[in-house]
This record gives sequence, C-alpha cells and structure tokens, in this order.
Amino acid sequence: MLEELKERVLAANLALPKSGLAILTWGNASGLDREKGLMVIKPSGVAYDEMRARDMVVVSLADGEVAEGDRKPSSDTATHLVLYRAFKKAGGIVHTHSTCATAWAQAGVDIPAEGTTHADYFHGPIPCAQGLSEEEIEKGYELATGEAIAKTFLARGIDPESVPAALVRSHGPFAWGKDPAKAVENAVVLEEVARMGLWSRILRSDIPPVGKALLDKHFLRKHGPGAYYGQ
Amino acid sequence: MLEELKERVLAANLALPKSGLAILTWGNASGLDREKGLMVIKPSGVAYDEMRARDMVVVSLADGEVAEGDRKPSSDTATHLVLYRAFKKAGGIVHTHSTCATAWAQAGVDIPAEGTTHADYFHGPIPCAQGLSEEEIEKGYELATGEAIAKTFLARGIDPESVPAALVRSHGPFAWGKDPAKAVENAVVLEEVARMGLWSRILRSDIPPVGKALLDKHFLRKHGPGAYYGQ
Amino acid sequence: MLEELKERVLAANLALPKSGLAILTWGNASGLDREKGLMVIKPSGVAYDEMRARDMVVVSLADGEVAEGDRKPSSDTATHLVLYRAFKKAGGIVHTHSTCATAWAQAGVDIPAEGTTHADYFHGPIPCAQGLSEEEIEKGYELATGEAIAKTFLARGIDPESVPAALVRSHGPFAWGKDPAKAVENAVVLEEVARMGLWSRILRSDIPPVGKALLDKHFLRKHGPGAYYGQ
Amino acid sequence: MLEELKERVLAANLALPKSGLAILTWGNASGLDREKGLMVIKPSGVAYDEMRARDMVVVSLADGEVAEGDRKPSSDTATHLVLYRAFKKAGGIVHTHSTCATAWAQAGVDIPAEGTTHADYFHGPIPCAQGLSEEEIEKGYELATGEAIAKTFLARGIDPESVPAALVRSHGPFAWGKDPAKAVENAVVLEEVARMGLWSRILRSDIPPVGKALLDKHFLRKHGPGAYYGQ
Repeated sequence: MLEELKERVLAANLALPKSGLAILTWGNASGLDREKGLMVIKPSGVAYDEMRARDMVVVSLADGEVAEGDRKPSSDTATHLVLYRAFKKAGGIVHTHSTCATAWAQAGVDIPAEGTTHADYFHGPIPCAQGLSEEEIEKGYELATGEAIAKTFLARGIDPESVPAALVRSHGPFAWGKDPAKAVENAVVLEEVARMGLWSRILRSDIPPVGKALLDKHFLRKHGPGAYYGQ
Repeated sequence: MLEELKERVLAANLALPKSGLAILTWGNASGLDREKGLMVIKPSGVAYDEMRARDMVVVSLADGEVAEGDRKPSSDTATHLVLYRAFKKAGGIVHTHSTCATAWAQAGVDIPAEGTTHADYFHGPIPCAQGLSEEEIEKGYELATGEAIAKTFLARGIDPESVPAALVRSHGPFAWGKDPAKAVENAVVLEEVARMGLWSRILRSDIPPVGKALLDKHFLRKHGPGAYYGQ
Repeated sequence: MLEELKERVLAANLALPKSGLAILTWGNASGLDREKGLMVIKPSGVAYDEMRARDMVVVSLADGEVAEGDRKPSSDTATHLVLYRAFKKAGGIVHTHSTCATAWAQAGVDIPAEGTTHADYFHGPIPCAQGLSEEEIEKGYELATGEAIAKTFLARGIDPESVPAALVRSHGPFAWGKDPAKAVENAVVLEEVARMGLWSRILRSDIPPVGKALLDKHFLRKHGPGAYYGQ
Repeated sequence: MLEELKERVLAANLALPKSGLAILTWGNASGLDREKGLMVIKPSGVAYDEMRARDMVVVSLADGEVAEGDRKPSSDTATHLVLYRAFKKAGGIVHTHSTCATAWAQAGVDIPAEGTTHADYFHGPIPCAQGLSEEEIEKGYELATGEAIAKTFLARGIDPESVPAALVRSHGPFAWGKDPAKAVENAVVLEEVARMGLWSRILRSDIPPVGKALLDKHFLRKHGPGAYYGQ
C-alpha cells in the first residue's frame, strides 16, 4: 500500500540527520495521499539508520487510525493530521528540534524576514504559535499543537503556501510543502535563516526587515505565475 | 571478566568523539555491574582510536581498588565511584568537556528547562554544583567532585533519575543513565540543550522557562508508567 | 566552445557547497573570457551534484544574450555582467548566501579590517552596498544589484582589485578575482573574516581596526611588486 | 638531512586543516633539532594536500639561512626562529588563524583561565602580545612579531613551558611544545578554550577565573613531578 509514498517519506526522514536538522531520533517527516485520505509517517522512536520503507506507518487522515503497519506511528502523528486538514495544499510535513530554529521557539519570537535568503522561500515572518493552556496540554497535547499553528495562521491572515513553516513556543519548528522532499527543503531553509538571524543580532539588535519590494521580488521570482528561477 | 560490559564501555567511550562531545583524550565513560560491585572504566590518557575492550579497567565499587587490568584507570575514577554509590539506579556515567555545557559550567549557572527538547530528557533544570574548597581540592579532588554533585542533588531535592546530568562549576558536565549507552545519550542531549540555551540568549536575556504542564507532558510521555513514545 | 573555461566554472561552482559556502542550489560562480567577450555561468536552479561542464551557459558580455547552452543561465546573470563591465580585471565572480557574511549584509554593515586574516586578502573594509529603490527592484533587479556594488566602489574610491568582495544590503556577499578559482578563495576568506568579526563582538563592541602599517604589510606581502609570500 | 623531523613536521602541518585550525594555506608548523641548530618548517604558500616531507625546508637557527630545500620557507620563519631562541625548551611551534583564538586576538584581550579545560594545559591566562610599532612592522615584521611574544612573557614573568601559547594583537595565535605534535595539541586546546570563553560570555560578562587551587590541581596532575594523568 502506497509503496512509492513510503519510499519518499523514508527518504525525507533520512534527510533530517543528513542535513544536520536532527540527532538521535528527533524529527519526523510524513507525506499525504490526499485522494486516498491516507498519511504515511515515521514510526515512533526508531533509529534513522535502522529504518526501512516498510517500517513507515499508514494512518487515516479522517480519524487517525492506523491503516497499515506493525509499528506505532510517530508520537506527533496527531499534529501532522491537524496540519494536513487545515493546510489543503500540504503534501509533506516535517517536525524537528533543529538548533537555531528551536532557539527562536524557546524565546517565543517570530523569525522576521531580514533578507533575500528568507524571502526566496517565505513571503513574510515565520510566526511563533504561542503556548498551549494547561488544559490543552493535558487533554490532547499533540492535537492542540497542530491547532495552535493553524489558529495562528488563521488569526494573523497568513497563507500557509506562502509561509510554509511555523515555530511552536517552547517547542520547535514545523515545516511543510507540496511533498515530503519540499517540506525537508523548507525545514533546511528555516534553520539557516534562524542561524543568520541569531548571528545578525550580535551586530545590532535592531536589524531592519527586508523591504516589501525586495521581499516580493525574491519570493515571486521563485513562486507563482511570474516565476523565472530554475529551468 | 565482565567481557560484555567492557565492550559496552568501550563503545560508549568511542561514541564521545564520534558525537562531537570529546576531542583528544578528554571525556570518559564507565559502566557498573552493581550485583558484582565492579565498575569498568576507560584507562587514563589513552587515545580513542587505539583503545580496545581489553584496555578497560575493572575497579571495585567498594574501595576503588583495581580488580583487573594492566592500565591505570581514568584519573576521574573516584568521581564515578562516588556517583554510583549515591545514585543507586545509575549503570553508566559519562564525563566530558563538551563545548557548550562547559561554557555554562564556567559561568557557574544551572541550565534551565526552556523547551521540550530539554523536557524530553530532564525533568527540570540541570544543576551546577558550586565550587570546591581549597581543602577539598587538595585532599581528594576527584572524590570531592563527585560529592559536590551528590550533595547538590540531595540539598535541592532533585531526583537523579529524573535529571540525569549535572555541571560542576569551572569544570564541566557529567551525565548518567541506566547503562553506558544511555549515559552517552544524556550527555549528547545535555550538550544540545546547552547550545540552544546559548543561542536563545542572543535573542533575549529573559528566556521564560517551559511551563510545568509542558515539562511534565514531555518528560512523562517518554518516562515512567504512562510513557507512550517509542515502540 | 570555451571548454576549458566551462570546466573551471564547474569546478568553482562545485567548490561552493564543498567549502560550506552554499547549501541547496544557493550560490553561483562564473568566469569570463574577456578577449572573446563571453561569460560562462552556472545554469539556474540545478543541483550541484547533477551539474556537468556541458550544462554551463555561455552568455555575451555585451548584451547578455545566451551564446551557447540549452539551459537558462543563473537568475543572477545580469549582476555578474554588470560587475565584469565595471571591474576590468575580474575574470571570475562568485555569489553566495554564506551564513556569516549574510548576517553582516542583513545588518547592513561594512566588514571592517580587524586583523591580518582580513589584511592578507582585502586592503580595507569590505563595503556593504546600500538598498535599492523600489523602482530599481521592479525594473531590473539583478542589473541594479550589480550597479549598486559598482557605484559603491566608485563613490567610496575603493579599488576592486584591492578589495575583491562586497556585501549587498538585506541580500548577501559577492566576491571576485582574476579567475573563478580565485573568486571562490576570496569568498571563503570573506566568510571566515565575517565569522571572526561576529565572535569578536561577543568580547567587546568596540573592536579596533587593524592599524594602517599592519594592513599594508600583510596585504603587500601577498600582493603587488613587493610580494614575498608563496613560492 | 633530518628525515625523521621532516616527517614529523609534515604530519604537524597536515594536522592543522584536519583539526579545523587552518583553511587554504593558513597555518604553519615547525620542529627544531636543537643540538644541530636546525629548524624544519613548512614551505610558503603550498597547499596542504600537495605537501610532501621532502618539501619541508631546513633553516639554520643561528642565522635563518636555508640549509637545505628547494622551496622558500614559510613567510613566518623569522617569528619561529625568535621563539625557539627565546623559549629554550620548545621543540615545535605552530601558527594558525584559527577562528575563535583569532577573535580574541582581534579584540586584543588575554584568554583568562576560566575552567579546568584551560588549566589542564595552561597554568594561567594566555597572554595577548600588544601591537607592534609602525617602525617594527616596516623594518622586520616577522622578527618583531616573535619578539613581541617573547617580551610579553618576560615582562609579565610567564613561564613559556607552563603557558605554551600566545596571541598576537590584530593577528592570531601561536602555540609551542616539546615537539611538533605537542605544539599542534596545544593549538587545538587553545582554540577550544577560546571557543568556550566566547560562548560563556553570552551567559554573563563577568565570568570568574578558575580559583588558584583548582588551576594548580589540574595543571599539576598532568605536568611536573607529581603528575598522575595518563599511563
């Protein structure tokens, strides 16, 4: 079932330690077959170098039940499902504890768009979803985490296709994209712009945001009908 | 004698440079056979890439005498012994001078729990044991180092199973676990949360600690009777 | 056509990820045959590990038209062309988003000459070209980027042979040299002095610039008629 | 001539990029045969991966003349010679532009002894030799650099065997030891304590120096008649 998607989800998971985004078993990637209503996700707590495509777990998008697989799915499964339901164009999701993005999440601060590196991938600040209430944490923590992200995008009017990543306060980053590989790429860029922003702040505390014209130029030369980057 | 434990202690020692926790000959790992009352530890000042299982030294937990081995045990042997005597569930101990954890130790500051990365492994701040007196340093330095850690946990009412690591002021980190591999894992996480905490402070000096509900949630989904992380 | 130059431009592009200056497809290198009036440049958005010499695109220095190649040239082609026209001794140009140099660009600050590492390659501060107007961005962004650099060197009386690199505000670094390999080398040094300068600022905010005598000594022992470094 | 020493000097030079202390051709190592009055040093500006033992240059300690070798010796040859003349126990010297040590040199600040990592190798602060006068730079720069280090040790009463490294203001670090391998080791430790000290300062600006008892304990358990570290 979904053999090709399993291979792609496996590849996305293996890309996390290889790209320096995850150590130990931290970080998970999933992919969605939206037509079939099925998500493929990493098993929980399995070492990256022992993982095979057949270890990936198939979960129903509608009810979160395991549709295939001997393994328990990632403990963050409910978060992924909420995000796929809220963000209709997402076909891949990645969660990591990558060092610099997590530093921003721990500070509880949005990552502002401060340069073209950011603008090439994110059409505005990467928002930090604020903390969950004690009740939300206790009643359905992973679900509430996804809802906190979705609510943040809704409340702030951010388009999840134009800003395909978020931080969760005191926790860490999530990124998404049209497929698992693109979600990994966005997670890589998120970590890199997080690192640049930290270094920049050693120089001055009042880094100016990139101007709107430059933000638009870089985002739109790579995305949308007027894009001219690439072959 | 204790051939299997020697292999595991060797593997733990070799994991230190591989994980970026130790350069040169800095850092040592040990393992305990509590039933037999014997500790296996790295020899002193031997290069990691020349070390073999048969070079590991067997030391008596009761009196610190070498029970087997041609080599001198690690100069930190007395510290390990004190910790095994004080922390009854510890089966492995690691000491390193890993960069970021040592930076916190040199500043003499506890590493606060500022996010879920920390909470997944440590159920509260990682304490920094304060300095030794001149007399303690001169009379039995390595023993006093272990005692300073044990006293800190006792005085502050910290459970060494829930917070399996400590800093020693002006010195560096120690971590432990049920076996040598788990002690290494805890040392890896300690270094990573130390690094995140340093980066976070570039953003703001008043990083809020993770709330109690989130701290409990993350620690308890991985530890204790209600754990649901992993297979 | 220009087979040897294509090989050298390919090698320069491959050196970018290898030297830690570029991830994903960020960063591009070009080389110029000034006699023939032809530039060879990386194709746009192609992965480094799939690139071959025959994928390099040949572009006319005079009018920017593609003279040979099936691929679209780098989206930054117009910037390279402007720089080759303005800086008559440049035979290679490199553009990256390397982390620390970009941090300086995002802060909009020149990298001062603070030590001999800098002085060995750059005979004075590396200037940061200030932002483009909205009109410039919309009418011909990549061309305007090159012009902003060229104007900065002209207005400030900086010799592009003595200071073979620049930052562009909110964007990132450009470096050049007599050939593509030298441009890469200058980009490597730029990133390293940018990193040193960031670390230095943790110690004190008022780092003194290197004195003129030391700046001259180091630059001139490697460059010009009195050079005595190397074989 | 001096074939074994050439092999050891080559190995020390190759250890510089391997240990992350040098990129490009930055950094040089030498070794001394004090009985014969001959120094073996890296050739100037040669790539590390092309260097062979037979490329090492033999120079007279007394007058700096090349005694054997087709290549020009390192441009820093005069600095090495001055240090061997001043520091009678030195048998190997290393000069690098390693990132963090250079950041301290550019700030013109001594690296204080802030922990046991430092104390294991350096029995006190690593001094920063202050700047050279314009005249010194112009008349015999490399010689004056060595003299600035030697004078600093003399004026401040520092024993070069107990503190086997120095910074030169606006320039970078030098380290030495009984042989080339030990000089490399000291350069590695210098860079690591420089890095720790920078990270520590993000936590607090008033890091306390390690107390004298702890400084003595760590230095003397590894050095001198009472040493008990190692086999």
